Amino acid sequence: MGNTFGHLFRVTTFGESHGGGIGVVIDGCPPRLEISEAEIQQELDRRRPGQSKIVTPRRESDSCEILSGVFEGKTLGTPIAILVRNQDARSQDYNEIAVKYRPSHADATYDAKYGIRNWQGGGRSSARETIGRVAAGAIAKKILKLAAGVEIVGYVKRIKDIEAIVDPNTVTLEQVESNIVRCPNPECAERMIDLIDQTRRDKDSIGGVVECVARNVPKGLGDPVFDKLEAELAKGVMSLPASKGFEIGSGFAGTLLTGSEHNDEYYIDENGEIRTATNRSGGVQGGISNGENIIIRVAFKPTATIGKEQRTVTQTGEETTLAAKGRHDPCVVPRAVPMVEAMMALVLCDRLLCHHGQCGLPLALNQNLAAIAP
Amino acid sequence: MGNTFGHLFRVTTFGESHGGGIGVVIDGCPPRLEISEAEIQQELDRRRPGQSKIVTPRRESDSCEILSGVFEGKTLGTPIAILVRNQDARSQDYNEIAVKYRPSHADATYDAKYGIRNWQGGGRSSARETIGRVAAGAIAKKILKLAAGVEIVGYVKRIKDIEAIVDPNTVTLEQVESNIVRCPNPECAERMIDLIDQTRRDKDSIGGVVECVARNVPKGLGDPVFDKLEAELAKGVMSLPASKGFEIGSGFAGTLLTGSEHNDEYYIDENGEIRTATNRSGGVQGGISNGENIIIRVAFKPTATIGKEQRTVTQTGEETTLAAKGRHDPCVVPRAVPMVEAMMALVLCDRLLCHHGQCGLPLALNQNLAAIAP
Amino acid sequence: MGNTFGHLFRVTTFGESHGGGIGVVIDGCPPRLEISEAEIQQELDRRRPGQSKIVTPRRESDSCEILSGVFEGKTLGTPIAILVRNQDARSQDYNEIAVKYRPSHADATYDAKYGIRNWQGGGRSSARETIGRVAAGAIAKKILKLAAGVEIVGYVKRIKDIEAIVDPNTVTLEQVESNIVRCPNPECAERMIDLIDQTRRDKDSIGGVVECVARNVPKGLGDPVFDKLEAELAKGVMSLPASKGFEIGSGFAGTLLTGSEHNDEYYIDENGEIRTATNRSGGVQGGISNGENIIIRVAFKPTATIGKEQRTVTQTGEETTLAAKGRHDPCVVPRAVPMVEAMMALVLCDRLLCHHGQCGLPLALNQNLAAIAP
Amino acid sequence: MGNTFGHLFRVTTFGESHGGGIGVVIDGCPPRLEISEAEIQQELDRRRPGQSKIVTPRRESDSCEILSGVFEGKTLGTPIAILVRNQDARSQDYNEIAVKYRPSHADATYDAKYGIRNWQGGGRSSARETIGRVAAGAIAKKILKLAAGVEIVGYVKRIKDIEAIVDPNTVTLEQVESNIVRCPNPECAERMIDLIDQTRRDKDSIGGVVECVARNVPKGLGDPVFDKLEAELAKGVMSLPASKGFEIGSGFAGTLLTGSEHNDEYYIDENGEIRTATNRSGGVQGGISNGENIIIRVAFKPTATIGKEQRTVTQTGEETTLAAKGRHDPCVVPRAVPMVEAMMALVLCDRLLCHHGQCGLPLALNQNLAAIAP
Repeated sequence: MGNTFGHLFRVTTFGESHGGGIGVVIDGCPPRLEISEAEIQQELDRRRPGQSKIVTPRRESDSCEILSGVFEGKTLGTPIAILVRNQDARSQDYNEIAVKYRPSHADATYDAKYGIRNWQGGGRSSARETIGRVAAGAIAKKILKLAAGVEIVGYVKRIKDIEAIVDPNTVTLEQVESNIVRCPNPECAERMIDLIDQTRRDKDSIGGVVECVARNVPKGLGDPVFDKLEAELAKGVMSLPASKGFEIGSGFAGTLLTGSEHNDEYYIDENGEIRTATNRSGGVQGGISNGENIIIRVAFKPTATIGKEQRTVTQTGEETTLAAKGRHDPCVVPRAVPMVEAMMALVLCDRLLCHHGQCGLPLALNQNLAAIAP
Repeated sequence: MGNTFGHLFRVTTFGESHGGGIGVVIDGCPPRLEISEAEIQQELDRRRPGQSKIVTPRRESDSCEILSGVFEGKTLGTPIAILVRNQDARSQDYNEIAVKYRPSHADATYDAKYGIRNWQGGGRSSARETIGRVAAGAIAKKILKLAAGVEIVGYVKRIKDIEAIVDPNTVTLEQVESNIVRCPNPECAERMIDLIDQTRRDKDSIGGVVECVARNVPKGLGDPVFDKLEAELAKGVMSLPASKGFEIGSGFAGTLLTGSEHNDEYYIDENGEIRTATNRSGGVQGGISNGENIIIRVAFKPTATIGKEQRTVTQTGEETTLAAKGRHDPCVVPRAVPMVEAMMALVLCDRLLCHHGQCGLPLALNQNLAAIAP
Repeated sequence: MGNTFGHLFRVTTFGESHGGGIGVVIDGCPPRLEISEAEIQQELDRRRPGQSKIVTPRRESDSCEILSGVFEGKTLGTPIAILVRNQDARSQDYNEIAVKYRPSHADATYDAKYGIRNWQGGGRSSARETIGRVAAGAIAKKILKLAAGVEIVGYVKRIKDIEAIVDPNTVTLEQVESNIVRCPNPECAERMIDLIDQTRRDKDSIGGVVECVARNVPKGLGDPVFDKLEAELAKGVMSLPASKGFEIGSGFAGTLLTGSEHNDEYYIDENGEIRTATNRSGGVQGGISNGENIIIRVAFKPTATIGKEQRTVTQTGEETTLAAKGRHDPCVVPRAVPMVEAMMALVLCDRLLCHHGQCGLPLALNQNLAAIAP
Repeated sequence: MGNTFGHLFRVTTFGESHGGGIGVVIDGCPPRLEISEAEIQQELDRRRPGQSKIVTPRRESDSCEILSGVFEGKTLGTPIAILVRNQDARSQDYNEIAVKYRPSHADATYDAKYGIRNWQGGGRSSARETIGRVAAGAIAKKILKLAAGVEIVGYVKRIKDIEAIVDPNTVTLEQVESNIVRCPNPECAERMIDLIDQTRRDKDSIGGVVECVARNVPKGLGDPVFDKLEAELAKGVMSLPASKGFEIGSGFAGTLLTGSEHNDEYYIDENGEIRTATNRSGGVQGGISNGENIIIRVAFKPTATIGKEQRTVTQTGEETTLAAKGRHDPCVVPRAVPMVEAMMALVLCDRLLCHHGQCGLPLALNQNLAAIAP
């Protein structure tokens, strides 16, 4: 239960940090979409460990294999299964945590729920699980791009107390990828990198905030009432490891304004389109996209795994201490950027297909065969 | 699409602010639970309009009728349908908004999505829809109470910039209900009420933050990976009208700490239970409850409907202005308290049933018949 | 659980044979569809009791009220709730079955499952539940008609051993409705009516077979692998009360042929369309519609409620006898016709929307806005 | 869409007959269940090609690899992914069908739906897809066995017009597996084998009927109204390739009886249990299991692929002829036996978990922690 996301564009992930591998099955993908392992690999490379000095040194090529659903370079409309084998698994690093619960990790809760857990690394709770999401997200992004010109760009907005000023309306992927911390403000980026590096040397960890924007989103995506666009986005990103908070548009800060300050007044733009003068709504009103940029923020806590000694308990109920020895990220936020983008893409793609299914059908006789033919 | 919430304890709501009525169908409710219209009404009365001077004066008794699923005072295990008729519908108040889009409302997006909307009030986007959630939440709360002693208490944590210090571990429903703004800190409550009252007279609106705690939640609720408890909670509350942000535990503020400051160290309590010394995790680790109090916060924007004149456009694309005349809340936050509680109850109840279904089955021959018998 | 059917066009029914009423919530209906209570009532009248001498004399007008989702005669795209109140409920007829289990009814199994049941009539297991399906089916039929010219016609194919020869390719609703047993062959119809009437006088009951055809179904509906069109149809009709068997196309008789006799050879028709020379496949190949007529058959057992005395047991485990006194149908098959049609319409409509959602989206930039606009 | 089955015990399959492989992801499996690749392989070996002279000679070892969800021989409660690589893929056999549609196959309908298909064999419509179902079914069978002592035995009831008399109440797996046609009546089996062998030499094919019984099924499984046990079973087996009909209990023959002949009268057995004297209901009443043996029958058409020349058309709309050259089964029925068993197991296991989730929760304070602890 709980390993499937989406309604029409439906993603099921599987796999643990150690064992046979990590993967995803994507059901409901539109047919005849050109897709290659290389395109998916490109996104996976942004997520994978070992890519820079500020992330975990675990060596995983994270090479993906498309097992099914693609034929002669095109999607078949049937399930796309993608597999990434685990490679650099050093189970010996985990002998200690086989018996000791890591603070603020899922070790104790998995044991409480299942009465068993894979103690080699985080098992299913490991961020390696997000490989499947990022792979699926690569396909979702392509569909959104081709169907509606949607662009999704995520970036590091804040690391601990270093906050970057970024214009979500103009920021580019190139700016984001121009440095290893994925902050499009170069000056801030440098300070962030230094702080992460120092934290790593202190055997500690830090967190921060990822901001993500979707541009050119068609009006009309999202469904009242439980599947509001912001609700689906919130679920998507709050299901990422280490996330503690979610905002859309004005977020928590919006509660400090009055209605007359906060409301987005309408006007007619040069193309005759209805637009809002401001965008405190974050591109969504009443759960449905309004055509403005969709802007969300996600808080990621400091990595739970740290080298410093902490108090904890054993599986059998004795108090003890633990200082992590395994490889880990001093700050997950830079690697979380492609994960947030992926979840945003999965949500938007699913809602695009659902909207098209419910509202896009011509309801007049004789328009029919053409309308539903491929 | 999108009007159903939950997996095993599954809630479907229907109805618009004007028209035949508002209702809910609850599927998957455990059988033989004693439930009465009076118990449900009690929760609905906390949500209904006209209950005090700081909420909308619309007069609705919001009297509920149980149409099915309850027999001789007990649940049958089959769908429970609950209906609340609309009463004080003054459609004439809405002639203007039949053609003009209210800023930061769903009028324009509903039209963009569906090409049609019920312009008598907010239609489906009206907060009246939450009647169904609150009614279902009353049942979910009772199940949680009986099955595990769970207590859910929500309260106003902040109105605009007036923030109350409240101890989530001890706050009671009585304290919350002791004043009309639902802030358990009496001194803050008074200031909040004054501010809301002043705002109403200014024909403006304000927002704030609801905090909600669930106590005595059993360990083990929540499912990796997409249906993590915090993900489901986020979806639940971000699907409420006017919500703009969600936090669990340390939330956004947690990103300002280091890992060694943020982690919740484990210890063994006097009963031999594994506990955490702090609760920055907010009762959830790895998406699964750890037995500590679950604490969430939800940001609600200032009410979009205000009496002040604002720039807007008509349905046919002309620029105009609008000053709302209909009845409306100057601040939705006090009435949002029972809504947040309801969503928390729906999530926890659903996860309790799912957990019991997957993990609670005795897998040893001959335990069987007793185990599944009612 | 289990009271929702469909994926994009999603129907949830509620209600028992006695109590507040019976209803349905339809989520995912395309917007701007013209629909009236009168159109829905027309289908309900074909299902309702008391319509002729060969059905139960229970007096129910089965008048429907649309509670939500329709505004100024058109669907809003939001949930359509429809309610039918129960009227002619004679609970006193049921005093005996409050303690005695009716053979081949659901009394004993409901008690075994839930530990409680509404013993006033069949409760949730009553065929009155199908009111919701037939109401929803009326809307589904209209969508199918408008979007693709689909026609669905069901009829009584056999009553006990009286089997009618009917050409599914040409049979009309008018022929079906020309007599009270709903068999389009007038001569057979007369014999069937006599047999049912005689059976009623014998205080016994009989069953039979409903055949149903869908014509003009677009190619491409149905989804591999679990949601094959025949699988969804089978589920739909096997969820109707009293159904014991399902066939599509050649059905069980097809197993007596060889492959060379059974296969449907292809040819090109006068319009250049790929067609099959025969239709043993019943309009579906590999789970997907092939454009030929979809033909299914459903077996309905003899009504379980009979006036003859039978052996049974009480709720508390004593052996006894029972002779039904309540009003009941000597043969459910004529009234099952609109139910089978409704389930076929629900399946086809849902699959049409799903197909359009997954496969109907133009994946080329700049086609987008027009494509998804309403 | 459509590649997931089940609600709490949820199975997603992927893969085509040619390409990277075939697999399944099982979500919601109870934790701490002992399971090995060997146990799963045992069931796969009953399904695999090349096992005898009356099935396709395609050589596939169908060796399964558990990729995730099992640790130290026990299930983790997280998704179990199982992969079977394709081996003996002779794409050259398929050059002709790359352009010609095989009659009564899915080639034409896949093209109509998706505008693309994997023409190397049946692609996704191949019966190789059922590998995933059979693998998942092996786990479901084990859960059912351990939780409730359930036994599921399928067998060939009829091949063309050779029908075996078999007692479903006593038939054993050993009897079924004692011959290559899987008919527990040895004399019939011999005649069936001869007929299949002769048909193969005639370059033709035949079909038949599989009967399957589940014994020791607890009372109370199955959910009103759409997820009735017979509805779920019907969907499950009608989603198998080549199935054309489904019956439960008396099936179509039951329609020839009167109610007084058909009803299953109740009595109290020696253990004080409520039992039925006959079992025309097939173990299910009102959609819910009544504790009697569940008996279903599935009609499988003659294999569509035959060596005889048939009329057909090309993808581009020209009439032509085709005589199949690829390896294929002259009769799918013997290999369908484990498939039917698997689908029955998946349905019963899912309904067992759902029932336990909804109805098995103790609703009295203080019973709670023990009840939901693992």
